[in-house]
Amino acid sequence: MTKMMHRDPIEGRSVQLDDVEWVDFPEALSDGGITWKLLNVAPELGAWTAIFHCPAKSSFASHVHIGPGEYYLTQGRMEVRGGIEDGGETVVAPAYGYEACQAYHGKTYFPVESEFYMTFLGPLNFVNNEGGPTVALVTWDVAQSAWEASQ
Amino acid sequence: MTKMMHRDPIEGRSVQLDDVEWVDFPEALSDGGITWKLLNVAPELGAWTAIFHCPAKSSFASHVHIGPGEYYLTQGRMEVRGGIEDGGETVVAPAYGYEACQAYHGKTYFPVESEFYMTFLGPLNFVNNEGGPTVALVTWDVAQSAWEASQ
Amino acid sequence: MTKMMHRDPIEGRSVQLDDVEWVDFPEALSDGGITWKLLNVAPELGAWTAIFHCPAKSSFASHVHIGPGEYYLTQGRMEVRGGIEDGGETVVAPAYGYEACQAYHGKTYFPVESEFYMTFLGPLNFVNNEGGPTVALVTWDVAQSAWEASQ
Amino acid sequence: MTKMMHRDPIEGRSVQLDDVEWVDFPEALSDGGITWKLLNVAPELGAWTAIFHCPAKSSFASHVHIGPGEYYLTQGRMEVRGGIEDGGETVVAPAYGYEACQAYHGKTYFPVESEFYMTFLGPLNFVNNEGGPTVALVTWDVAQSAWEASQ
Repeated sequence: MTKMMHRDPIEGRSVQLDDVEWVDFPEALSDGGITWKLLNVAPELGAWTAIFHCPAKSSFASHVHIGPGEYYLTQGRMEVRGGIEDGGETVVAPAYGYEACQAYHGKTYFPVESEFYMTFLGPLNFVNNEGGPTVALVTWDVAQSAWEASQ
Repeated sequence: MTKMMHRDPIEGRSVQLDDVEWVDFPEALSDGGITWKLLNVAPELGAWTAIFHCPAKSSFASHVHIGPGEYYLTQGRMEVRGGIEDGGETVVAPAYGYEACQAYHGKTYFPVESEFYMTFLGPLNFVNNEGGPTVALVTWDVAQSAWEASQ
Repeated sequence: MTKMMHRDPIEGRSVQLDDVEWVDFPEALSDGGITWKLLNVAPELGAWTAIFHCPAKSSFASHVHIGPGEYYLTQGRMEVRGGIEDGGETVVAPAYGYEACQAYHGKTYFPVESEFYMTFLGPLNFVNNEGGPTVALVTWDVAQSAWEASQ
Repeated sequence: MTKMMHRDPIEGRSVQLDDVEWVDFPEALSDGGITWKLLNVAPELGAWTAIFHCPAKSSFASHVHIGPGEYYLTQGRMEVRGGIEDGGETVVAPAYGYEACQAYHGKTYFPVESEFYMTFLGPLNFVNNEGGPTVALVTWDVAQSAWEASQ
């Protein structure tokens, strides 16, 4: 391939959320019964988008945002980076948040039933502790594989 | 400046949506009383994020997505690219949509009261018709200026 | 389309530059005989990459970088934003430069024969003057169309 | 922080390459005396840009491109993904290449003295073998720290 390759525009699409079933988010990466719906993957940039349903007292394992992520919390309460009692933030729905590239989330906890939508520009790097080795690097294609395995 | 410049990580932040007032979205770009809350601008990439409240029978003027945009419709109904009756899509809340880079939205119409959250990787190019000249190029900083002028 | 759509990874590719002919860059946007080779377009993000050959005393018309761009000047000298004598920068090969999102380049001038490679995350907005109306919005697909028309 | 935060545009900058010294690229990630100059880091997106000088018979350790990367080979010859003899590509300067998000580079080898410039939208994930665990995840800030430690 020594020349320019013609590329067509990407096609838009939409998803009626009630037509998609909630499935378990991998237990190795979460606790307490979190379910999700994967809505999009964008392989050129490595971006992905999902919605998460989090029962009371559920949580995500420690992770680093390798690219920026933005969430829209539509229900409940989310304690980010330990929550406000531990130097992080506690947000109550309706809330928006910007999690920057390289943000470390040692603990993301949902004290009450919660739901949020999130766009990710890049992978989540699950680790045991800040600066610790990678336990799982959830790129767009790992997210897609996990989703497809559950269908 | 002839050397590398040290850069610090971007800081994360969150917004309690009820602490921010709805303000009018510019009338030159919409019809029917659409209001909005600007939630984030990201000047390095030219990205921005907002939530829009759309009364019944409101609409956005014709525009092209210069970069990809993703929406989460939490209330109501949105007719995109003319709606399903005109070759486009009609989505009903709760719905997700991916609008690709260079997507032309000749008509975005809300037959009933609606609300949606949207992330934009790049500007909206408002035009009179498909392929027509630019009427307004709403980049991240134009969005920020419009927002700050309303506060 | 109401479900997730499987997406395959993008394929990598390479271009032997000597296998691609230099063609004229559109005269409406440049002066003095600038030629170019378009190397890549990336429609998901709206990015594109090209290499430009600029004869002595050639120049680009005024434009705004709608997304960030990075260049590697391998030959010659480039006066950016008016050059150092007019508050901008003058760079001499070999040089690297980062042009930020929304940077206005009122004058890009090459006093001697020059060549540079550049990646663009988003379009160039050619304007008559700073803050002026759009003359031509060179998105990835406009670049691709101009390139293909010349082959 | 419950409101929008004003953000200023990013400032452009340039680097005269001869004003920056070549320093050793970390030996844990390369072999044969590769040196580099880090030219930019972009923390909002996690992007970074560098130029590499590769002596004859030098190589990079196995890695995955977590985001897309584009290179401009200005001198020498690069065997990517094993080279053309092993199912990959061999490029000869002057050459351009697009390495896609999730591309695995089991072997990047320079049979003769070579030099290339590369932009990375996201980290390099150094691994022992395809699908193997992370040995080092070189994000923009790891690259910056390595660079600053060498100055």
